[in-house]
Amino acid sequence: MPDETDIQRPYLLFLGDAHDDLAAKTAHGIADWRREHCVGQYRLPGCRATLDLPELGPGAAVAAGARTMVIGAVNPGGQIPDSWIYALTEALDNGLDLASGMHARLEEIPQIAAAAARNGRRLHNVRHPARSFSTGSGLPRTGKRLLTMGTDCSVGKKYTALALERDMRGRGIDADFRATGQTGILIAGAGVAIDAVIADFISGAAEWLSPPAPDDHWDIIEGQGSLFHPSFAGVTLGLLHGAQPDAFVLCHEPTRKTLRNVAAPIPDIADCIDLILRLGQMTNPAIRCVGIAVNTVALPDDAAHSLLREMENAYQLPCIDPVRDGTGPIIDRLLQEA
Amino acid sequence: MPDETDIQRPYLLFLGDAHDDLAAKTAHGIADWRREHCVGQYRLPGCRATLDLPELGPGAAVAAGARTMVIGAVNPGGQIPDSWIYALTEALDNGLDLASGMHARLEEIPQIAAAAARNGRRLHNVRHPARSFSTGSGLPRTGKRLLTMGTDCSVGKKYTALALERDMRGRGIDADFRATGQTGILIAGAGVAIDAVIADFISGAAEWLSPPAPDDHWDIIEGQGSLFHPSFAGVTLGLLHGAQPDAFVLCHEPTRKTLRNVAAPIPDIADCIDLILRLGQMTNPAIRCVGIAVNTVALPDDAAHSLLREMENAYQLPCIDPVRDGTGPIIDRLLQEA
Repeated sequence: MPDETDIQRPYLLFLGDAHDDLAAKTAHGIADWRREHCVGQYRLPGCRATLDLPELGPGAAVAAGARTMVIGAVNPGGQIPDSWIYALTEALDNGLDLASGMHARLEEIPQIAAAAARNGRRLHNVRHPARSFSTGSGLPRTGKRLLTMGTDCSVGKKYTALALERDMRGRGIDADFRATGQTGILIAGAGVAIDAVIADFISGAAEWLSPPAPDDHWDIIEGQGSLFHPSFAGVTLGLLHGAQPDAFVLCHEPTRKTLRNVAAPIPDIADCIDLILRLGQMTNPAIRCVGIAVNTVALPDDAAHSLLREMENAYQLPCIDPVRDGTGPIIDRLLQEA
Repeated sequence: MPDETDIQRPYLLFLGDAHDDLAAKTAHGIADWRREHCVGQYRLPGCRATLDLPELGPGAAVAAGARTMVIGAVNPGGQIPDSWIYALTEALDNGLDLASGMHARLEEIPQIAAAAARNGRRLHNVRHPARSFSTGSGLPRTGKRLLTMGTDCSVGKKYTALALERDMRGRGIDADFRATGQTGILIAGAGVAIDAVIADFISGAAEWLSPPAPDDHWDIIEGQGSLFHPSFAGVTLGLLHGAQPDAFVLCHEPTRKTLRNVAAPIPDIADCIDLILRLGQMTNPAIRCVGIAVNTVALPDDAAHSLLREMENAYQLPCIDPVRDGTGPIIDRLLQEA
């Protein structure tokens, strides 16, 4: 997906004054999954997060090859605080582009807009699509695709997709992670925030995100939302139709009692698989489920593994926690049936 | 849904230089369904469409009570042609607001923006939502709702909803049409172009469109797209989840061979009803199908009526063409089961 909106690498990761590692979750995601693209971290006084990368200011980062400074921390209000502005303009003045996953657009801050203009630098607001899309065509395209789906939001769809990319590449398979959310885009350096697209173009944007490819190439597409979530199911269905996946992995968090932020019940796993197959068949009749990725972080090791064995028996599918054990059994299934 | 984005009535309908009645389809829709809100038509030289309304210029229309001039014609390029600009600014200078369902925004034309500013008039671009929405809550709300669904796009969902409103009101039922597309909004004077909303907010916009209401009130919500259309199913599902309909009418065009603008097959009617029920139950467990509205315009009278009888036998539901026969049997079923 080479595109004019691609973020230039490598990165300097800006942690601001993040008060803990959770506030620097985006930077951690990038450093965890794309360490080879990170030349250093830039922290302000009071920052208590760290990525164990070299401490570099913008000048030293440029000397080390950096092209873009990525805002890898969130501010509680979701806005860019005044205390960051000097560092952000400093990056632009040293020749770095800026990339942000925040709601507020970088150019809304006059000093940043001015610094970008005087240095001819680019400002990437990855939460806001920088281009327009066509409506979905529904036409099949070459190459293979896997989409991570969820029983709910925030169950590990991005993590599972990244783990699948890593593990497939580890076996020599030509696989690319395709990002559909802001953190995923900053990790991959490209993608589209699918829930920020105009509704008419959801499936068209998903088609654009994963273009025709060689027959043995796999795009591993980051899922969004859930077909069972009353706030976001439209996004999920448009993404499913546009992605036209040959295979999907269902992601699940077994300890949750209701769907995230709403009163709706957690759907039954078999119902989920059945509905995804039924809806996915509309644009790819060969769609199949190749496994369940279970987020067992809330369970002790033995309980996690006995749950996974139980689920394997119940659904006759590889059931793994990608964090604990990697995605090997799912890839085995994917290759077996392909 | 009183809202600051409501379009002030009555209207002067602007037909421009429409070369035939099809090019003035929007104006015809407004004059057909809301004649009581139309004080006149304003036609430019060469116009060959007519609504049989008084011919009025903006000054005379204002004297007759008009508040808004609605652009009721389309220009082949989808843009506002230079030849219309004088008439549009003339309307603003005479104290009318302007409303447009075109893609181009009225304020993009400098003369129109200037005339609106100097007269303190409002420009309604109904294809572009003028406000932001929350994500859908999925919470039930009071009042009753019917949504028109389709086996495809452009099968008569808007017409069916308007006919249901008319026929229900004719029986003394408290019913309001709720518009989700630009022509519907211009007819109703309010609504939201649901396919132009940011994807994250589709179901939230649908919840906003049809707020809590008295128990015996029916909102008749205009459907969009089709759950089986690979371009637009995400919009359709978000609208279904946000509308939380108690009842739906399936709209169908029986002579079509493939879905509109794509190669996908026309879905089976029973499959459609089953899938709508399954997905709709997520936000309204009591959802039911109360009939099928069949667009038989392409069939002669006897073939149309024998098809409708055949379908009634097959699906055990009222099957009507709302244009030929009105929606009576569907309303009977709605009231019977309510």
